[in-house]
This record gives sequence, structure tokens and C-alpha cells, in this order.
Amino acid sequence: MSSSRLVGPVRIVGAGLLGTSIGLVLRRQDVDVTLVDASPTAVTLASEYGAGRAAGPSDEPTLIVVATPPDVVADVVAAEVERFPNAIVTDVASVKGSVLESLRAQGVALDNYVGSHPMAGRERGGAVAARADLFTGRAWIVCPRPGLSEDAVDAVTNLAEACGSTVVTLSTEDHDSAVALISHVPQIVSSAVASSLVAARDDYVTLAGGGLRDVTRIAGSDPTLWIQILTANSKDVSTVLREVRDRLDSVLSALDAGAATAVLADLLSTGNSGVSKIPGKHGNSAQFAQILVIIDDTPGQLARLLTDIGDLGVNMEDLRLEHSPGSLIGFAEVSVVPSVEDELVAALESRGWRIAGEGR
Amino acid sequence: MSSSRLVGPVRIVGAGLLGTSIGLVLRRQDVDVTLVDASPTAVTLASEYGAGRAAGPSDEPTLIVVATPPDVVADVVAAEVERFPNAIVTDVASVKGSVLESLRAQGVALDNYVGSHPMAGRERGGAVAARADLFTGRAWIVCPRPGLSEDAVDAVTNLAEACGSTVVTLSTEDHDSAVALISHVPQIVSSAVASSLVAARDDYVTLAGGGLRDVTRIAGSDPTLWIQILTANSKDVSTVLREVRDRLDSVLSALDAGAATAVLADLLSTGNSGVSKIPGKHGNSAQFAQILVIIDDTPGQLARLLTDIGDLGVNMEDLRLEHSPGSLIGFAEVSVVPSVEDELVAALESRGWRIAGEGR
Repeated sequence: MSSSRLVGPVRIVGAGLLGTSIGLVLRRQDVDVTLVDASPTAVTLASEYGAGRAAGPSDEPTLIVVATPPDVVADVVAAEVERFPNAIVTDVASVKGSVLESLRAQGVALDNYVGSHPMAGRERGGAVAARADLFTGRAWIVCPRPGLSEDAVDAVTNLAEACGSTVVTLSTEDHDSAVALISHVPQIVSSAVASSLVAARDDYVTLAGGGLRDVTRIAGSDPTLWIQILTANSKDVSTVLREVRDRLDSVLSALDAGAATAVLADLLSTGNSGVSKIPGKHGNSAQFAQILVIIDDTPGQLARLLTDIGDLGVNMEDLRLEHSPGSLIGFAEVSVVPSVEDELVAALESRGWRIAGEGR
Repeated sequence: MSSSRLVGPVRIVGAGLLGTSIGLVLRRQDVDVTLVDASPTAVTLASEYGAGRAAGPSDEPTLIVVATPPDVVADVVAAEVERFPNAIVTDVASVKGSVLESLRAQGVALDNYVGSHPMAGRERGGAVAARADLFTGRAWIVCPRPGLSEDAVDAVTNLAEACGSTVVTLSTEDHDSAVALISHVPQIVSSAVASSLVAARDDYVTLAGGGLRDVTRIAGSDPTLWIQILTANSKDVSTVLREVRDRLDSVLSALDAGAATAVLADLLSTGNSGVSKIPGKHGNSAQFAQILVIIDDTPGQLARLLTDIGDLGVNMEDLRLEHSPGSLIGFAEVSVVPSVEDELVAALESRGWRIAGEGR
């Protein structure tokens, strides 16, 4: 008997990281899962991991999850809808409008199709990186359309909840606008800044502090995947990217004209406002105080620091590590609510910790 | 008797965060420190903190450190050089060319002036945020010029080393190019991306993951300070910013033409190359494996995790925390060398930790 509200069999097409992870979490809830992949080896591997069984010719799925690479999602959804007209079909691609558009252009019957998007970190790594916990605590966006049956939306909602995700409902168009803003354009900009390092002198790059590291962190992402994502969402990406480009243009013109003060003041203060909109821990956008604690760079030291902070009854809102270039000294940047900052600094210093002033 | 190679009195002009912190660390080494500030209250406060004594009319400093706000540094250096022609003078402003240019334009004698730049996090907060450890483990860039006396450069090098910093020598021009690349342009770009959030729907911004948070983190910086920095380094900033802007322009044109694949492939792979140039821990640029451990969001849990990792004898290369939107679940992203990844995952799972696949 299944402990999930999902009634199987659930057919997963594409036994990569996402498909296999979904299979793993559903199997733990005793849902019957069947697996399909262009590669028979991928199906065997995912089965051996416990993500389901190879689909047989007589299986009649109630729910189909298409988890293939983004550039073939629409064609796979079309084939699945045709083959299993009574099943609910969803896909997990990170751009939704282009899939829907392609399905409509192909004249596919869409009564049972609901697009969705689990926001679960990198969408790569294959079955070998799959985890039943991959979706725990993540947002899973479900994109209903007017006229769609409640059953179809419910089935996909149940899937997301069975995977431990928080369901967020957005229209297809709104989804694509949202991910252009919060994910796709930041990726492009990060890659552009990182690109400027390639021709730079190594000794310049060695001086990099936390700011550059943060801005360029996602520039390490997989190009193959991101080409597919960005081209699939080109219209929305273009809209947001143009706005960012225009801002940089204004700054550049003002700098070149030697009269940049007002333009920079506007940019920097608008940037302050923008970043303060991003929710902090637990959806709370309060600003925290940062305490920079000097640690010698060993795991034991950091564990001891956190134990001390826990002993003091202080709730740590965030933690970042920073390393000194070429030395064994590290910094732990501890974020706390401003009201406990002074007390915590004093208590840590009395326990022998050295505090290094504000972090970056 | 002084335990430092510095022979005082050292005169610090500007008793803010940097000036007071320098005073604190030098006083701990028994160097005689005299303090000057436009505000007598600031001098009193810094003195009471133990950063030195108020400068008297008969004090003859050997070394003068100008630590005023950037926009008055050149004028203050000029006044100090005129008043104390035998003292070595340095300043700690984060742009060096504009100071030198202004001094030259004023016809100031520069034989004893050496610009420098301690890279110690945010340059704000006032004396109240000062710490003797502020510069520990940080780079302190010293900018000698041809013809400058060895004594002058030695004095500033000794100052940086007395403060616990690693001395990096760069020409004035190279310094400004380097900070434009690694600090100033990333600041502008981060502010531009954050600015795009201001007009966006709140429910879009709520979906922000680690990528957007990283890219926009420094957009929270102090506008007043950054206007001064960016305008002072406008030429170098413009050069680097133009390159970034041009890259975004190419992407935008390609997206609008519906033929972006090759341009995006180039951007993303060049971005990969650029970010791999940034040194990791201890100057080692090896890539690490990331393990995402699910934690319930309490300080005790994290301390226990780090204790477990320490017990297992695994060296943690980096640590980041991530929070789920609106839930109590958090993720600790632990970076380790790839060769220990599988072993660590297995050991943590056997101790009851849940691993959530790759982090972003």
C-alpha cells in the first residue's frame, strides 16, 4: 500500500539526476515507478539504485514525468501524450513557455499536460548523483493554465509534495519571467564578469576578495545545459538583460563624461533597495549584523566556534567562510540579529576568539 | 621598548575604522601613536579605545598614515608632507592613481610619499568598529615608484607587516587596474543586477536561490563610500566595465536575432575559464566537490555536523549555508577534495545525516 497520495504507476522518462531522484523518493513511499531512458544502461543503473523498474509494454501509468534534457522535452511530452492519452503528463524543464509553444505548434492534446519546475540546484550529474532528498525544502513551481482539469493540477501538486517540495503556482508566462530575473540573467552577468578575468594578470586575480568570488561563483556552471536554458527563454532573458545592460551603459557614459556622481548614487542606492527585497532566512528580509571571527583553518576550530555560539544561546542566521590568500588564517563570518551583536562579540572574545571587524 | 621594527611616533590622520584599527595594533606593539582627526570627539574615542594619544604640537612623527575618507586624502597628504618634510607619509585609500595625480598637480614633494592599500573588508564603521585584528591575514598593497627611497618603502612595508598583513607590491597604475577588475566593476555589476529586482514582483524575488544571492550580495554596500571609490578610479573602471558591457551586448544581439547558441557557448565557457583562475583556499585553485547536507536550522546541528566531519579526519575546504524559502530546513554545502567525496557521503549517511545532492 502506498503512503503517498500518488497512485502509480508513475512513469519517469529520463533517468538522469532529476528523474532518478524522483524515482527514489517515490519508491520510498511504495509508489510503483517505471523508468524509461534513451540509454538502457541508465535505466539499469537507476533501477539498481532503487528508483523504480524498467517500464514494460503493458504498464498503464497514471502520471508521467518527463525529465529529459531541456531541448528534447517538448517532443518527448508529445510522444507520451499520444501513447498514454489517459495519463497526466508533467515535465521538469526549467523553461516552460517554449515547451508549451512547441506542443501547441504540434497540435498535441494538452488537457492532461501540466508543466512544472522543481528548483533543485544543478540539473546535471546523472543518476549517479541522484538523492531521494534532492527536492526537500525546495520550491517546485507548477504552471496551470485556464481550463485545465483540477485532477491534472492535483496530480502534479501531489508529486511535488511527495518529493518534499513547497508548491508555488505561477502561470507559464510568469514562471519564465521570474526565472529570467532570478536565475538566467544573473548567470549571464556572472559569466560576463568571470570572462573579464581570462586575459587578466594572474597576480591581479590572486587579490580577489569575497565580492568577486560571490559575483562569479555561478560562472562555473555547465555550458551545455545553460545554452539550452537560455536559448529556450530568450525573450524574457532579453527583456531583463536589456535593463541591466542599459544601466551599465548609463554608468559607462557618465564615467567617460567625468560626471558620474549622480548616476553612481542612483545605481548604488537602487542596488541597496533591490538586494533588500531578497528574503533572508525563513522568508524574513531583516538585515543581520556580521561578525568576522578569526580562525586557524581547521575543521575542529570551526566546530568549536559553532559549539560556543550554540552554548551562548545565540541563533546564527548565516555563516560564511573566507580564506586569506596564501596563509593558514581563515575568517568565519557569522550573521546574527543586530540586537545580540555586542553581547556575542564580548562573549566570544572572553572565550579567546579574535574578532576581525566587519567582513565583506 | 618597541617590539615592532617601526620607530614612532607614528601619526595617524583620520580616526575612523582603518586609522583606529592601525593605532590599536601598533599600540599593542608599544609603538608611540599620535592621532589627528577633523573631529576632536573621534580622537578622544580612539584614544580611549587604546589606539594612541592626541597629537601634540611638538610631536615629530617618523611615519604618517593618512586614513581619511578617500575624497580628501590627497589634500591631507599634501598638508602632512608640507608640515613634516622629514617623515615618511602613506595613505590607505583604495584608489591610488588619483591621489598621486592630485599631489603632482599641486606640486607636492613626493620623495617621502608611498601610497598603500590594505584590503581589509569594508572601509567604514568608524572607530567603534575598530579591531587590532582588522588587517590580519589580508593583503596590503604597497605602491612604490621609480626613484623612491628604500627607506620610505621599508617603513610602509614594516607598517603593513606590523598589522599582520601580507605585503603585495604593485605599481600605482597596476594597483588601480587590479582593483577595477577584482572589486570595482563587480560592485557596479552586482548593483545593476540588484537594481533589476526593485520593480519586480515580490513573489518572483522570493524564489531567489543561491545564485542570485551570491551575485547581488555586495549590492548592499555603502553608496557614499563607493561613489568616491568609483569616481576616483573612473578610467580603469571604464575599461573593464566596457568589456563586460560589450559581452552583454553581444549576447543581447544574438538572443534578439534568435541565433544565440554560439555566442552563449563562448560566454559560458569563457566564464568557466575565468572563474577557475580565482585561487581557492591557500592559493590552490583546485576544484572541490560539494556535498549538500540537510540540517534542521539550528546552530547545534551545524556544530554537530562539523564535529562529525572533523572526527572523520576530513579537511573541509569551504562551507556555505543555504536556507529553504519559508521552511525550517537548511542546507550546509561542504566542499572537499573530490577524492574523499564518496567516503565522506557514506560516513555522514551512516551517522544519520541526509545528503541532498549537488548544491548551487
